[in-house]
Order: sequence, then C-alpha cells, then structure tokens
Amino acid sequence: MVMLTLSSSLLSTCDAYNYKTYFYLQKVDHFSFANQDSFIQRYLISDEHWDRRGGPIFFYAGNEGDITLFAENTGFVWDIAPEFNALVVFAEHRYYGVSLPYGNKSFSEPKYSGYLTSEQALADYVDILTYLKSAIRGAQKSPVITFGGSYGGMLAAWFRIKYPHVVQGAIAASAPILQFTDLTPCDKFGQLVTADFASASSECAEVIRKSWAAINNVTSSVEGKAWLSNAWKLCKPMRTEEDVKTLKDYLTNVWTNLAMADYPYPANFLAPLPANPVKVVCSQLTASGHPPKMLLEELFFGLTVYFNFTGQAKCLNPDQQADVRLDDKGWDFQACTEMVMPFCYDGKQDLFEPAPWDFQQYAKECNKKFGVQPRPYMAQYMYGGKLINAASNIVFSNGLLDPWSTGGVMWNVSSSVVSIIIPEGAHHLDLRGADPADPPSVLKARRLEKTFITSWIRSYWEEQQQQQE
Amino acid sequence: MVMLTLSSSLLSTCDAYNYKTYFYLQKVDHFSFANQDSFIQRYLISDEHWDRRGGPIFFYAGNEGDITLFAENTGFVWDIAPEFNALVVFAEHRYYGVSLPYGNKSFSEPKYSGYLTSEQALADYVDILTYLKSAIRGAQKSPVITFGGSYGGMLAAWFRIKYPHVVQGAIAASAPILQFTDLTPCDKFGQLVTADFASASSECAEVIRKSWAAINNVTSSVEGKAWLSNAWKLCKPMRTEEDVKTLKDYLTNVWTNLAMADYPYPANFLAPLPANPVKVVCSQLTASGHPPKMLLEELFFGLTVYFNFTGQAKCLNPDQQADVRLDDKGWDFQACTEMVMPFCYDGKQDLFEPAPWDFQQYAKECNKKFGVQPRPYMAQYMYGGKLINAASNIVFSNGLLDPWSTGGVMWNVSSSVVSIIIPEGAHHLDLRGADPADPPSVLKARRLEKTFITSWIRSYWEEQQQQQE
Repeated sequence: MVMLTLSSSLLSTCDAYNYKTYFYLQKVDHFSFANQDSFIQRYLISDEHWDRRGGPIFFYAGNEGDITLFAENTGFVWDIAPEFNALVVFAEHRYYGVSLPYGNKSFSEPKYSGYLTSEQALADYVDILTYLKSAIRGAQKSPVITFGGSYGGMLAAWFRIKYPHVVQGAIAASAPILQFTDLTPCDKFGQLVTADFASASSECAEVIRKSWAAINNVTSSVEGKAWLSNAWKLCKPMRTEEDVKTLKDYLTNVWTNLAMADYPYPANFLAPLPANPVKVVCSQLTASGHPPKMLLEELFFGLTVYFNFTGQAKCLNPDQQADVRLDDKGWDFQACTEMVMPFCYDGKQDLFEPAPWDFQQYAKECNKKFGVQPRPYMAQYMYGGKLINAASNIVFSNGLLDPWSTGGVMWNVSSSVVSIIIPEGAHHLDLRGADPADPPSVLKARRLEKTFITSWIRSYWEEQQQQQE
Repeated sequence: MVMLTLSSSLLSTCDAYNYKTYFYLQKVDHFSFANQDSFIQRYLISDEHWDRRGGPIFFYAGNEGDITLFAENTGFVWDIAPEFNALVVFAEHRYYGVSLPYGNKSFSEPKYSGYLTSEQALADYVDILTYLKSAIRGAQKSPVITFGGSYGGMLAAWFRIKYPHVVQGAIAASAPILQFTDLTPCDKFGQLVTADFASASSECAEVIRKSWAAINNVTSSVEGKAWLSNAWKLCKPMRTEEDVKTLKDYLTNVWTNLAMADYPYPANFLAPLPANPVKVVCSQLTASGHPPKMLLEELFFGLTVYFNFTGQAKCLNPDQQADVRLDDKGWDFQACTEMVMPFCYDGKQDLFEPAPWDFQQYAKECNKKFGVQPRPYMAQYMYGGKLINAASNIVFSNGLLDPWSTGGVMWNVSSSVVSIIIPEGAHHLDLRGADPADPPSVLKARRLEKTFITSWIRSYWEEQQQQQE
C-alpha cells in the first residue's frame, strides 16, 4: 500500500520554489558504535525570506520519497514562510531519493537495510539541524518548527516528542501515529474508504463491493481471464491466479488512493486526478445489479478516471499502483520492520474483498522478503502510542475524508497537544498550497496552525529572555 | 576514573534485602534491524510489600556494575517501599554483571561492544517494564517511579525525559547530566574535590598539592623509585615512568573517591572507609613544608586510610582503584564513546597535578583501546543538555560535598523538574539507607523526594480517572 503523499506534480517545476541543494555527512548508526560508517544525506534550503536576526527555521521532516517531491508539494510551508521570515529546510529521509547509505546495496540485506528506521531518521534530523544552527549566521538561536504529512507527520510529532530541545513545535498533518497493533481496530481504515464512496452514492460503494466476486467468477476460467484482460485493456494479459491477485491488490489501492486524494481541485497526488475524484468515479458506478461481466465493464469506466485521467495511458498496468517516483521499496521495508500497520476487511462494513489481518503470515513474508523480523510494538514502545500527554506543542490535523484519520489523534490531548479536524479534508490537504477551491474548513485549519506556530515562537523567545535575566 | 557508586558492602549480605533473580530475553539493538541478536539480561524483583491492587513499581535504572551491588546499596528504595506498597525492580545495565550480550567476547571489538550505550540501556528498561506490566497480575496500570544514582541517576532522568509514557517520575541522585563538553568547565570537578580537603584543613590540601612535585622529584632516579616503592609498600616495585604515571593516576582517583565517599558514618563505598574519611585522612596531612621524602612519608599515612582501613591489605596496589566488583572495562568503553566527560586540572585552583583536557589525544587513545571514535556531543544531542524545560517529574538531588555536583542540575528547571541540594551530602547520600548519623539535610531531601513521588503517583491516578470518565 502506498502510504501517502506526493503530488508528483507534472505542473510544478523546480522553478516553482527557490531552494538550493546541500549534502551532509551523516552517521549510519546514531545509537550504537558497532557500525561507524557514514553516508551522504541530501537536504534543501531556501533563505529567500529568511530574517538573519533570529527568524525561525521551518523544517520539513522528510518521509518516504525523493525530498524534491515533498518540497514541491508542501505549498503551505512555502506560502507562510514570508510572513514568518523563515528559513525553509527540507531534509531527505535516509534510504529515499539519493540519500542511500549503501548505494544500490542499501536494500540487499539487513546488514545494509537495517538502519532504515524512524529513530535513525529523527536522529539524522537532530544532527542536521544542530549543524545548520552552528553553521548559518543568525540561526544559532532560531526556534525550529517542524512540519510533515502522513509518515512525515508522524515524524514531525515524534520529533517534538523525543527532541523538544531541538524543535519548538510540530505541525503533524494526517499523521496516523495510532495505526498500530492494539491501538486502532484493523477494520476502521477500510470502513472510512467505504464511507467516502458511499457518501458519493450508496450504489457506487455497492458496485465496488460486488466487483470482487465478479472478478473471481469471471477469472476462474482461462477464457474469463482473457476476456477481462481485454475488457480492461491490461498491459499484460492475466494468465495465473497470481495475476488475478495482483489485479485485486491494485484495485484495493486504487479505491484507497482515490479516498486519500479526494481533493476539491484537480491535483496530481498518487495519480493525476480531476477535482473531487471519488464523485467523478462514482458517477460511472451506478448499477450494482448488473451480471458479473457487465458490472466489470461498468467498473472499468470508473477505473479509467484513476489510471488514465490524462488520456495518455495506452493500457492499465496493475504493477504500478501510483506515481513511479514514489519509492515503494523503502516503505515496504519499513512496513516489515517498525511500521507494521494492521489492516483488515470484511466486505460488509467495507467495500473490499474480505481479508483478515494475519500477523504470523505477514511476518513470514517480511522475513522472506527482507530477512527481518517485524517488531509490531516498536513504535508504540518508543513514542508512547496514545500516551502522549507529557508532550507539548503539537498540532495533529486530520481530514475526515482521509482514511488515515482513523489512526490519527482526533482529540485534544492537552492544551498544547491539539487536534484540528478538517471535515472536507482528504490526506493532509492543509499542507498543500492554497487553492481557490479550498473549503473553508482547511482555511480555518491553516489559520489555527499559524496561530499555534506564532505562539510557540513567542514562548520560545520569552524563555530565552527569562534565561538571560 | 570510577564514576561512582556501590558500597561493595561487606556488611550487607544477600539476606539484607529479599529479592528474586529473573532473566529477560533482550534485543541487542532496539533502534535498527541490522543486528537481530538477543541476549539474556538479569533483573531482580521484590514483591514483599507489593500491593497488587495497583501499587507502584519502583524501578532502579541499573548503572555500571553488577546489579546485586546496587540492590544491596540503595537502601532508600527499600526503606520506602513498604509505605508505598511498591513492587521493587532492579534491572542490570547491559554489558555489566552477568548481562553480557556476547559473553567474554563482549568487549573484544566494536562489532560486539558497540551496543553499550545509554540509549540501548534505556530501551532495555522500556522492554522489561512493559513486559513486567503485562506479566505481573495487578501491575498492568501501575505507575512507575524510576531511581538511580550517579550514571544511574542520569539514566533515571533521561528515562523520564525520553519515555514519559513508561515512567511517571524520576529520582535522579547525583546525576551529572551536564558533565559534558561545552556544558561544564572541565576544571570545576577538581576544584570541588580540593574544596572538600581544604575545608578539613588548608594544610591538608597543600600537602596533596605539593606531593606531585615530590613524587616526580623522588622517582626521577632508580633509587628514588625503589625508595618510594618500599616506603609506600607497593605490591610491585616501580621501575618505569609508566609505573610512576600509574601511581599518580591512582592517587588522583583516591582523592576523588574520598571526596565522593565522604559520608558521616563508616561505609564501604569504593573502599571500606571510616566516618568522615576526608577529615580522617587530613588529620594525617598536616605539614606541607616537609622536604620531598618526608612529605611522601606523611602522605602515606593518609593514603593508608583509603587502601587499608580494614588493616587487611598487605601492600598497596595502584592498579586497583576501587572495589574489584566495579567493572571498569564497561565504563571505560562508555567514557570512550558517549560518556566523554572532560576533566582538567591546573594545580593552583585544585590540588591535582596540572593536566589539560586534550580531546584529540583522548580520542586517539580510545580508538587504540576500543576501535571507536568518541562522540562527545552524543548525550547532549540525544537528551538536551541544559535544555530540559520540556520535561517533567524529575528530582535532581546533589550533595555539595560531591564533586559530581559540578555537573549536576543545581537549579529548579520548572515546577516539576526540581533540584534538591544537600549541603552535607557526598555522592548520592540520599539514596543510601537511613543511618543515625545522617545529617538533617539528607533527611529533609528524602522527605521531599517522597512528597514528589506521592504527588506523581496521585497525578497519574487522576489522569487515569479522567480518561475513564
């Protein structure tokens, strides 16, 4: 599953935001001395609006992808940097983009891949920020506000939780820090995807719900596989049951991604999509009573919105779930180690094919794929799960259209660890650049976030003042 | 240098406190997946006074030595367990006692030794506590209070700082969390040792201050080395300049240890000593005007108090700085990696032989000894140094006789991160068992600590209550 993020943004170019690229010689292991290797980590800086007399540092905690994509698709940070006179920094997460600790061996065996964890990534960010504050004139005492969306939002929140001496506050957008074992029921995520489709039309959800049986029925024969391959313009005809499974996995991701990317304007997040893509897809899925083949023909019209909104796709490739520039390998490894997120479906309360959560089987496949034993409680032990009331200065924002909100912090933990709900919001809509089609709720969320940032910066300077007195 | 702790306690037997020994299958690396080994970690439990209806857990964060020694020499925890109905747990720090991750290979090369860090140790404690809370009937919701002295006190404070979801409060006794590069001037420690001796008599400090030149003078010849070896009853006669250096290092530690262990009653901390040992030693050191040999003869009388208070030592062994049950190897490794504590002496403001702090040289020797590059800023980056105002529920206690107080938190950081000063206290006197000779200031400190513990536990239950409502 693609966790998140990134409009690959055919529209935005490197010129859209004005930053420079730097590299930092980073420790591979921050917590032990068995491995004293170093690697080259990339980060981006913009000082276009920077006030050297102590302006704040806005630090994006890079997540699972090429950092330039995050830089180009986190418009909110760029939008507000001028009024805060902020230095903008985007740091690339280790093992993504060009920040590969062991080059093309990085995922070859645990000896090399094993240092891909959130703890190491946060420690990277501590080192980079400490270095920047010492190296950049005027930055020594600058307060740091960290931002992130999705897994990046989890990192932003955890950054403040673990290193409050390094970052003064965190905007954690659509950060499912509770999407872990024993913290959130595994069926909630699929139910929210379903609600998104059902709210467009109940018939739409029903068509999708019935499609799994139709696919199983039709593809049970060689002729059926050929028929569907042809009807759906698959790039490679289905031949095996494995091919059928790949197609169904692809569909699971498509419906999920549509819900995540259900923005009120055309965007290129996971795939190029029209405004309100769920509604557009559902306008095609209107008759759940059709017999299997007709149902699947109908479904294909909906599917086309996802895989071929640009009209340029010649065929449907189920191996490509989303934007190719999203690097699945790194996230697959993380999902097999620390980021074990249980999902399950029953096909009744949700529109997916029934699939229980089977950790044993999951662990077995992880071990086979990467040679690792997953640690499903690792993040909870490290960061506290729901027990974060000792933390401070975090905004958790969640959109109610976003299935990841089911694993988010949806209540005010304290007066300084707060939740902002965006009823009309999909996946971290608030972190995206301003758009005329933005619903009022996201405008309000962004205003609130700016208020919190302002207050964190003010408190920081007040404390500095007190220490000098 | 022996950092701390441990009356090896010839007096206290294993019967003194009633605990059982357990073992936990622990991860070698909590932060990465490159090494997925496990090892056996020891911990001790006493449920003698445990109230299964949610009594608190008192958790001693084991430091650099055999955990049974800490259990037998942290009387305060045992003294107050009955009134709190607490479960008492002492966990052994990895790489000490019997908790060696790689048996007798543990210190052979960085590949094995490299997992000896405070971060890994704290993560061990998270796992053990989480396990215990799930495994012990009635403990599931128990609040946890962590205790520690010296490096153990640093661990206790850092435990609360990093894992406030696991421990509700920390008593950090004589915890020099600021004894690091750029946080505390390197000369303060020696100056406080000197003040301890000078407050017994200024002549005493002067004798010690002059002894270094006397040793250099006398041992510059072969005959002089033989003479001093004989006069001081050395177990092995000095022959080389290296031997002279070993002797002087030994003396540096003796004066330091005497200041640390300057308790108002006979105790066996680092070595068996009389009450007020600095005074007793100084009663022998009265004439700094003596010529070199006479000065050294005089010094030996003082030295005898340290190395032969029991009258059972046949000779003086400069290789043995303190109780043999203290394992220097582990701490030497930590001091060469994360726990780089700068010390320097000028022989004017202190009574030691002048010695600058030379990090380059220090790092070179560490690399030679252990194959590691020290990271002098690691602890500060990880835990914040002085910037701990986002933390809560920590008591930092320090005795003003204790040279380690120079690296301690000696001010109230906030209303819930507080400093308790014990003017008549040596190294973590407050953690020791009650004694009739305890000065009023330590009784007051212990009362205050109990008040904080009570309030942390009460707040915890109030929060639990609120969450259920």
